[in-house]
Amino acid sequence: MSAVEYQVDGKTYEGWFVMPEGKTNVPVVAIAHAWGGLTDNEKQKAGIVAKEFGYAAFAMDVYGKGKRGTTVEECQALMNPLAGDRAELQKRLAGGLAAAKAQAGVDASKAAAIGFCFGGLSVLDMARAGHDVIGVASFHGLLGAAPNIAEPKIKAKVLIEHGWLDPMAPPEDVLAIAKEFHGADWQLHAHGHAYHSFTTQGANNKEMGTIYDADADRRSFAYLKTFLAELFA
Amino acid sequence: MSAVEYQVDGKTYEGWFVMPEGKTNVPVVAIAHAWGGLTDNEKQKAGIVAKEFGYAAFAMDVYGKGKRGTTVEECQALMNPLAGDRAELQKRLAGGLAAAKAQAGVDASKAAAIGFCFGGLSVLDMARAGHDVIGVASFHGLLGAAPNIAEPKIKAKVLIEHGWLDPMAPPEDVLAIAKEFHGADWQLHAHGHAYHSFTTQGANNKEMGTIYDADADRRSFAYLKTFLAELFA
Repeated sequence: MSAVEYQVDGKTYEGWFVMPEGKTNVPVVAIAHAWGGLTDNEKQKAGIVAKEFGYAAFAMDVYGKGKRGTTVEECQALMNPLAGDRAELQKRLAGGLAAAKAQAGVDASKAAAIGFCFGGLSVLDMARAGHDVIGVASFHGLLGAAPNIAEPKIKAKVLIEHGWLDPMAPPEDVLAIAKEFHGADWQLHAHGHAYHSFTTQGANNKEMGTIYDADADRRSFAYLKTFLAELFA
Repeated sequence: MSAVEYQVDGKTYEGWFVMPEGKTNVPVVAIAHAWGGLTDNEKQKAGIVAKEFGYAAFAMDVYGKGKRGTTVEECQALMNPLAGDRAELQKRLAGGLAAAKAQAGVDASKAAAIGFCFGGLSVLDMARAGHDVIGVASFHGLLGAAPNIAEPKIKAKVLIEHGWLDPMAPPEDVLAIAKEFHGADWQLHAHGHAYHSFTTQGANNKEMGTIYDADADRRSFAYLKTFLAELFA
């Protein structure tokens, strides 16, 4: 496992690459980070993808090398400009995906993307923008449509792992994305007692509705394993 | 595998029992039938549970021995009295569950129930009525609340495999059961392009919205396998 620098539009980004031991020519899973940027949380998920699922994992960076948030204010300051400019976000994600596919040992014809929170929105945007991935999986992601893509033509298979009690993605957003994605091969798994950030170990902010949930974490990753096996079969 | 007669309230019912080969003291999955009664479709699902998952399977009968429907009119005539008398339905399901637990080779302390269409409603009613099962899984089931149980105290874990385009369980029914089951350990998996009867091989009635869907069938049974493994761990 190692940090990997890559360029998009002349700017430097820093991802994180993990290969499964003793394998080569493997499918790759690009990982989109939450609002804090590429942190230990994304590295932990990359480890699961490589060690438990047996695929290459590449955690992308859409903020830029060294740009990471720790406080709520810092995270918002990093996320909001991209949440408000989805075309720019999609461009940086395309760059991250290209970097993932360029890593040694990767079968670039078999790529998927997964993301968490803001990263969930990011991978849904990769599907909306028609990026070259077989499938995307969002975990407690924001579901709102991308204003720059009025009628998305979704080719990727879509899995949405969703906490039903997530205050940032209320039931009306579920109904809206079901309409938006009509005609695509989409699945949405509602975890009845889960809030936002249910896969983020240590999340426990009841006021913000970000709470780790061991059941939803374990179950959603079991479903992800099934989903990726279908994509890469 | 064999037909099994059992009694509820002095009336004779006929179930179908399948054991996994070479095993004993195994968990048991009770299967609730669709509106036609216990047919080859339920026997096929029982075969999957026994042969592929390794549990005992007992397809229950809530209509009575020999009472099976083939035409729409016959099926409605059998289903409607029970759909309109949920307390009676729940009593017959309790009898079927008791018969499932009484079979040789079954570990009666580890029971779950799964059901299809009307049988999906049936197993959700087993959860509502507090039947002694660790979990229930509904496949393209009707989601409407049971009028005889105003505030269900759900102990069983609940998995709902749902076709988002199912005309018999529209999005407002999804929102309603999410409210009804609030506080329970429930999951709902929406299959975006699936209609009603998506696991029923040969279903192809576009007018009624009953259509077999190979993707949703395969995926929902993979999720069931994961769910049952958690219940019986």
